[in-house]
Amino acid sequence: MIRRALEALTAYTPGEQPADAGIVKLNTNENPYPPSPAVERALAAEVSGRLRRYPDPSCAALRGAIAAEHGVTPEQVICGNGSDELLSLVLRALVEPDGVVGFLEPSYSLYSVLCAGLELQIRPLPLADDWTWTLPPEVRWDLFLLTQPNAPTGRLTPLPQVAALAAALEPAVLVLDQAYVDFAGATGLELLGERENVLVLRTFSKAYSLAGIRLGYALGPAPLIAALNKIKDSYNVNALTQRLGLAAFEDQEWMRDNAARICATRSRVAAALARRGFEVTPSQANFLWVRPPAAPATAWLACWRAAGLLVRHFPGPRTGAYLRLTIGTDAEMDRLLAVAPPA
Amino acid sequence: MIRRALEALTAYTPGEQPADAGIVKLNTNENPYPPSPAVERALAAEVSGRLRRYPDPSCAALRGAIAAEHGVTPEQVICGNGSDELLSLVLRALVEPDGVVGFLEPSYSLYSVLCAGLELQIRPLPLADDWTWTLPPEVRWDLFLLTQPNAPTGRLTPLPQVAALAAALEPAVLVLDQAYVDFAGATGLELLGERENVLVLRTFSKAYSLAGIRLGYALGPAPLIAALNKIKDSYNVNALTQRLGLAAFEDQEWMRDNAARICATRSRVAAALARRGFEVTPSQANFLWVRPPAAPATAWLACWRAAGLLVRHFPGPRTGAYLRLTIGTDAEMDRLLAVAPPA
Repeated sequence: MIRRALEALTAYTPGEQPADAGIVKLNTNENPYPPSPAVERALAAEVSGRLRRYPDPSCAALRGAIAAEHGVTPEQVICGNGSDELLSLVLRALVEPDGVVGFLEPSYSLYSVLCAGLELQIRPLPLADDWTWTLPPEVRWDLFLLTQPNAPTGRLTPLPQVAALAAALEPAVLVLDQAYVDFAGATGLELLGERENVLVLRTFSKAYSLAGIRLGYALGPAPLIAALNKIKDSYNVNALTQRLGLAAFEDQEWMRDNAARICATRSRVAAALARRGFEVTPSQANFLWVRPPAAPATAWLACWRAAGLLVRHFPGPRTGAYLRLTIGTDAEMDRLLAVAPPA
Repeated sequence: MIRRALEALTAYTPGEQPADAGIVKLNTNENPYPPSPAVERALAAEVSGRLRRYPDPSCAALRGAIAAEHGVTPEQVICGNGSDELLSLVLRALVEPDGVVGFLEPSYSLYSVLCAGLELQIRPLPLADDWTWTLPPEVRWDLFLLTQPNAPTGRLTPLPQVAALAAALEPAVLVLDQAYVDFAGATGLELLGERENVLVLRTFSKAYSLAGIRLGYALGPAPLIAALNKIKDSYNVNALTQRLGLAAFEDQEWMRDNAARICATRSRVAAALARRGFEVTPSQANFLWVRPPAAPATAWLACWRAAGLLVRHFPGPRTGAYLRLTIGTDAEMDRLLAVAPPA
């Protein structure tokens, strides 16, 4: 009864969400600060009399605000149940069944899971030892998912290199997965105006402190956005998420202040870890990709875990020696820095 | 750039969601009564400090409550971003690319849209003039979506006939799409214990008055549920929806009381419409499928619209002479009954 392709498929593994509320979660790149107070006010105003109704299938108010902020038209915006849903829609709408999908390796491990579920071929582009990449002489992908900045490495591909990839891919689509872009110094949104084959994905899960409501959006040329709209579930974004997302989005200052705080903590922690002998990859995201000294990464993982601090380890030949540390509050990071190294 | 199959595809058309708050919405089968007061209390308790965290990817608390209520194990339950998402997962997980999907015609118009988007073949089973159906001599579907009770007709297929369809399909899966089952006299959940090829889909959008939060669930054999879990987005149900859905689900009495009120109104309105010359299909759902007398259905539609009442019309040779009227409050239905027929 179950599709053959699913038998060999292993589901994407999300980071651990521990039941213990006392643990310091630095493993899934959440924001340590609360969302804008406007979100709580919107929640209180959302009377139960409205929840019995279906949500706006088009997310019109939210799309209008997003379009205005980014200087595009509402027809160039689609909202999703997290940017994970948008990734799935992109692959279902823009890649033929025999198509080949590209992405950096390592990057977001969901990509290969989505492709396997859709029976699409993948041809990853391996990163160099310093986690950068170069454009191969021949570009043969039918769609490329560029994590920008990348996860788990935190590196931002320079914009001229992004533009060159978009040009080389044409007419195939370049998707810029910008979950962490609010912590970076550049956005690459300029490409949207220049190219017909670029889509940008954004999320409310990181800089807006709203991982719990599931909200992402895509920006791009109207014909591509229309194709995604054709196959999305009608009511893909629930009413509360639309309302709270709008409240948070209208408070850009709150988001930018928190992002700046996190970037400041990131610099401080990166320097402190480097002084302790960690190899620290330059990061433009809300996490640090570090290679610990002296003991294996898994020993540091266990050490921090024992001290009530959860960070993320990705087993595998390329990534197994590293750990990804989400930037928490200054107090949380001080706790992390205070833990004694593995014996 | 866009998949060829999408060019000919027309997106599913949801019922109109008018901006005018004064209009009486009897077009999308929403519940006229508010959800359980426990939902509002849960909303207030959901502090913003939790929204920055990702939701539980497995919906453990909610699945536990659902499993206990239905007498199954949590491994036999999966939650979705509305049952629309579960329909999409079912088609993506349980039908091979060359597979043929069956469903009643007319039934939920989303089915054919989903199949077209996934490039699956469809072979609908046409309903008879009285909106019932009989099992064809040869059953050749790779999956069948049985809307139970059916929409837009409101008819419930007798359970022995459902069981016969499940037996004839085996090993292909029979999906019982039970969005409206809480308004019906029978559920067919017995089949879950008897058959390895039956999945049941439920929603919070109708009887629980929570269309706005997007929540549905599937019950079935653990191996089929595991297959759906493999391809669902990790965080497919947001944190607020999980919390509010649980609050509503734990107040079964509130849901049953409202369903009973709606069924009582349904009986009264069915009789009143019959007296006015309407052909009224026997309904086990929260709507009535009626053929108006004297004037075309579209004339009645316009008449009610002018009086501030929205009902649903489905153009087409089989359905164009009919209207689907959601059961609202008694006062709303009295307003509908008081409107003078088209001139």
